[in-house]
Amino acid sequence: MDIKHLLKACGMFKNDTEAESCLRLFDSLKYSVKKYHRGAIVMFRGDLYEHLFILAEGTLSAEMEDLKGRVLKVETLKAPDKIAPGILFAEDNHLPVTLKTVTETTILSLPKESVFAICRENRYFLLSLLRDAGNKIVFLAEKMRLIKFSSIREKIASYLLDQAERQGSNMVELKISKETMSELFGVARPSLSRVFSEMTDEGILRQEGRSVYILDRQELELLLEE
Amino acid sequence: MDIKHLLKACGMFKNDTEAESCLRLFDSLKYSVKKYHRGAIVMFRGDLYEHLFILAEGTLSAEMEDLKGRVLKVETLKAPDKIAPGILFAEDNHLPVTLKTVTETTILSLPKESVFAICRENRYFLLSLLRDAGNKIVFLAEKMRLIKFSSIREKIASYLLDQAERQGSNMVELKISKETMSELFGVARPSLSRVFSEMTDEGILRQEGRSVYILDRQELELLLEE
Repeated sequence: MDIKHLLKACGMFKNDTEAESCLRLFDSLKYSVKKYHRGAIVMFRGDLYEHLFILAEGTLSAEMEDLKGRVLKVETLKAPDKIAPGILFAEDNHLPVTLKTVTETTILSLPKESVFAICRENRYFLLSLLRDAGNKIVFLAEKMRLIKFSSIREKIASYLLDQAERQGSNMVELKISKETMSELFGVARPSLSRVFSEMTDEGILRQEGRSVYILDRQELELLLEE
Repeated sequence: MDIKHLLKACGMFKNDTEAESCLRLFDSLKYSVKKYHRGAIVMFRGDLYEHLFILAEGTLSAEMEDLKGRVLKVETLKAPDKIAPGILFAEDNHLPVTLKTVTETTILSLPKESVFAICRENRYFLLSLLRDAGNKIVFLAEKMRLIKFSSIREKIASYLLDQAERQGSNMVELKISKETMSELFGVARPSLSRVFSEMTDEGILRQEGRSVYILDRQELELLLEE
């Protein structure tokens, strides 16, 4: 992959004008590109995270071990995701997860200095960096809020009622994929789909694409009162 | 407060050279300054957060209500803290907490456009914005990790053992205050201090200022196995 295609794969610019200025910038910037085989460990939990990694190709799994040594998948990362942009700038910049490749992957690695230089030149990149960190905070805060609900049914009820309130409608536009939702709830993807189907069969919800209609609001509220 | 003192109070620059360039920038930037009495609501949970608020003077409490309508304090914010810098740039930028003043406060409010302009000119500000968002992610991820431990004693044990591993020493340098630690554990500050004292009396720990010595590692590990 030449540098132009690489930067495009990494979602580094919005349009052709920005592409040109971004390309010029990379002439004088430090960066490296590395390829990994499927199943490779890219970094271990606890490693210092000093360069911003951006996925140009492939899929990574972010994993943790619980107290008994069982591996828990925390997150799936796909090109052009940035890897842990928040951690890079945190005072305690140890990686909280182990990164393992799920497919062959190509990673662009940028030292902090390069990240700052790009932020000054490329407003789109700066915005995406701040947005990614912000989205992560919102995700974690919501995950924390939902953790007190033990069943998937309660988690779905609480998530949908909160979104309905925020969106001011009983028709909730899902802003995250079912995969991300299963990571938000800390449950397996098939289990989430099964409970969604059950709730649809019971006439509580109806789903059309990314829209979920709350048909029986009282039933959802009852779930949270128990 | 004139603008120079205000920007200084907001921690907007590192030294006098940066102060001058930052001051010049503010001649052409949009911003506003607002004062609040003690006990005032600055924003409600669910409000759209479109301007970056920076505390120039005073203290805020970030609060949430639980399902039964009880008020839970989530965080204390003190000048020169930025308020929810992550949320500002998140796709879902509804404030997850209600902001209430604890003392008289002065808040500098910057529209996103101004924040971007400052980021381009002032590297120190950009770094602090990214660092604040990163620190929040680390804080929330650690809070999530600790939530599975029910007692304060277990939380302390897990936190200290993890820090000891990260810092590669049985002498742990506390990187957060006891107040922040009580927010991390989701417990009252006096309860945290009491359990710390008990563990010191039992010869498990010794604390000197910000350093905590793990004297009985086995005892801490046992706590987490139960």
